[in-house]
Amino acid sequence: MDPIRIAIVGIGKIARDQHVPAIRGNGAFSLAATVSPQDAGLEGVPHHASLDALLAEGPAVDAIALCTPPQVRHALASQAIGRGIHLFLEKPPGATLAEVAALEAEADKAGVSLFAAWHSRFAAGVAPARAWLAERRIDKVSIVWREDVRVWHPGQAWIWEPGGLGVFDPGINALSIVTHILPRPFFLKDATLVLPENRAAPIAADIAFRDTGGAAIHMDLDWRQTGPQSWDIMVETDAGMLKLSQGGAVLHLPGGTEHGEDIEYAGLYRRFAALIRGGRSDVDTAPLRLVADAFLRGKRQTTAAFHD
Amino acid sequence: MDPIRIAIVGIGKIARDQHVPAIRGNGAFSLAATVSPQDAGLEGVPHHASLDALLAEGPAVDAIALCTPPQVRHALASQAIGRGIHLFLEKPPGATLAEVAALEAEADKAGVSLFAAWHSRFAAGVAPARAWLAERRIDKVSIVWREDVRVWHPGQAWIWEPGGLGVFDPGINALSIVTHILPRPFFLKDATLVLPENRAAPIAADIAFRDTGGAAIHMDLDWRQTGPQSWDIMVETDAGMLKLSQGGAVLHLPGGTEHGEDIEYAGLYRRFAALIRGGRSDVDTAPLRLVADAFLRGKRQTTAAFHD
Repeated sequence: MDPIRIAIVGIGKIARDQHVPAIRGNGAFSLAATVSPQDAGLEGVPHHASLDALLAEGPAVDAIALCTPPQVRHALASQAIGRGIHLFLEKPPGATLAEVAALEAEADKAGVSLFAAWHSRFAAGVAPARAWLAERRIDKVSIVWREDVRVWHPGQAWIWEPGGLGVFDPGINALSIVTHILPRPFFLKDATLVLPENRAAPIAADIAFRDTGGAAIHMDLDWRQTGPQSWDIMVETDAGMLKLSQGGAVLHLPGGTEHGEDIEYAGLYRRFAALIRGGRSDVDTAPLRLVADAFLRGKRQTTAAFHD
Repeated sequence: MDPIRIAIVGIGKIARDQHVPAIRGNGAFSLAATVSPQDAGLEGVPHHASLDALLAEGPAVDAIALCTPPQVRHALASQAIGRGIHLFLEKPPGATLAEVAALEAEADKAGVSLFAAWHSRFAAGVAPARAWLAERRIDKVSIVWREDVRVWHPGQAWIWEPGGLGVFDPGINALSIVTHILPRPFFLKDATLVLPENRAAPIAADIAFRDTGGAAIHMDLDWRQTGPQSWDIMVETDAGMLKLSQGGAVLHLPGGTEHGEDIEYAGLYRRFAALIRGGRSDVDTAPLRLVADAFLRGKRQTTAAFHD
C-alpha cells in the first residue's frame, strides 16, 4: 500500500517537536510538504508559504495536518476538504463549536476522513485508566493542571486573544482525558475564570462539574505555577484511588504504578492512518464543548496584568 | 386515545401567558398539575411547591413542561426522565451544552421523548421562509433584534446572572429561526459583547457569522431599544429580498407579504404530542451552540451600569 502523502500546515513548536518525528516514524505516511508564511520549513522537504500555493503547485498530497492557531483554522480546513484531502486537526479542532460541526458535515459529504486529535488521550496511562474505571463507582474527581505559561507558551500572543482559550489551552488536555476515562458524561455546575486586566483570556480557572451519577468533579487550572508543574487527575472510587500524573503518562492504581513512555503523537498518527484506511472520521467535540460552557456560564474575576 | 397528562414546572410569565392556553387549547393534553415554590398555581388545578412533592403525592403525569430558569433546569429534568416522564424544555434547553447532551442520552436510555422547544421556529412566517430559501443562493443576511429589556424582562434578575444569557435570551430566538431557514450551516467569525459594569451578562452584542458558502450574516442585538421594537431578519438572495419581521410572524417576499396569526405555542404543543405519540425526541442545540461560541470567542466591552 502506498504511503499517505501528508503536508503539515503551520510549522510552529508543536509541529517540529511532535508531528514531524511522529510522521517520520510511521511507515504509513510520507512527509510530502510543509506550509508556513513565516518559516523556511525543513531541510529536503518541499515548502510553500500558503496552502493556496501548495494546492496550485504541488506536490500532490492525500492528507494535511493542520497545526495553525485555531482562529484561522476553518478556512484552511474547508479548502482542504473541498479538494478531497483527509484532515488531522491539532487540538483544539477550531475556534468555535459550530465551525467544527460544519467541517464534520463537509468532510462527510466529501468522503474524506476528519480527525479531531486530542493528543493527551494517547498518553500511556489513559487507555488502562479508562479500562479500570469502566467497572467502578466514581465518588469524586480532582483535576489539578498548574503550569508556568512563560515556559510552555513563550510569546504566543494568539493564545491570549479571544478564541485563544488562555489557560484552557492546557486545561482542554485534562478535559480530553477525563471525558475519555470516566464512565458517565459530566457537565458544568459552576465556574470562575480569572483574567489578567490586560488580557482577553483567563490565566486561571476553578470549575465544578457534576457527572450524571452525582459525582463531583473539580478542576483547578493555573498558568502562574513556577517550580514543580502539576498535570494530575485523581479519581476516588469504590475500589480505591486512581491517579494519572504527568499529563496521563504515569498511572497509579491501588495495586501499583505503571510508567509509560511518551507515545502520544505516535498513537495519534496510527489512529489517523486507521481512519483514512477505514474511510472513517473521529470528531469528538466534548472537551471544547465543556470549555465553551465555562465561558458561557462562568463568573469572571480580574487579576494583575500579565506580561510575557 | 387518552390525553397526555402534563404538569407545568415553573409558573412564571411565560407559563401563564403561553403554556397554559396552548395546553388547554390542545385536546391531546390535559393540564394535570402545576409546580412552583413561590406561586399559588391556577384555579382548579392541583398544585405543589416542588417536583419532589408532585412525584410523591401525585396526581400521576405523563409529561412535564419545564419553564424554570435554565440554571436550575438540569436536576429537575433528570429527575423527571428517571421517572419515565416525557419532557418539554422551554428555551434555552439548559444552562450549558454538555448538560443538554447528557439529558439527551438519559432520555434515549429511558425511552422518553425530549423536546428542546424553540418557539420562534413555529412563528407563522418561518415555515414558508424556509421553503422559499431552500432553492435560493444566499448573498447576505442581517438580523436586527432590538428591544427594551425593562418591558420584556422586568425585574428578572436571573437573566443577568452567569448562565442567564443576557441579550442572547431574545437573541437566541433569532438564531433559532436563522439556523432553521438558511440552507447552509453557519458559524461565528467575530463577536463583541457589551456588558453593563454591574452585570455578568451582555446588554448588547454585535456578531459576524459566515455560512459555509461564504455568505456574511450579521446580527445586531440590543436591549436598550425604547420606542419601536425590532425583531427582523433580512435575507438577500439571487431572487430578491426575503424579510421576516415581528419575530417571524410576518413574511415579506418579492411577490408580496403574508401576515400570520400568533401560533407559536400551539405549534410547539402539536409537535410535542407528535413526538410523544411517535416515540421520538427533538433536541437541536445549534442556537445555544452559537451563543456559547459567542461567549467563547467574543471580545468584551464594558458599558454604563444597568438598573431595572
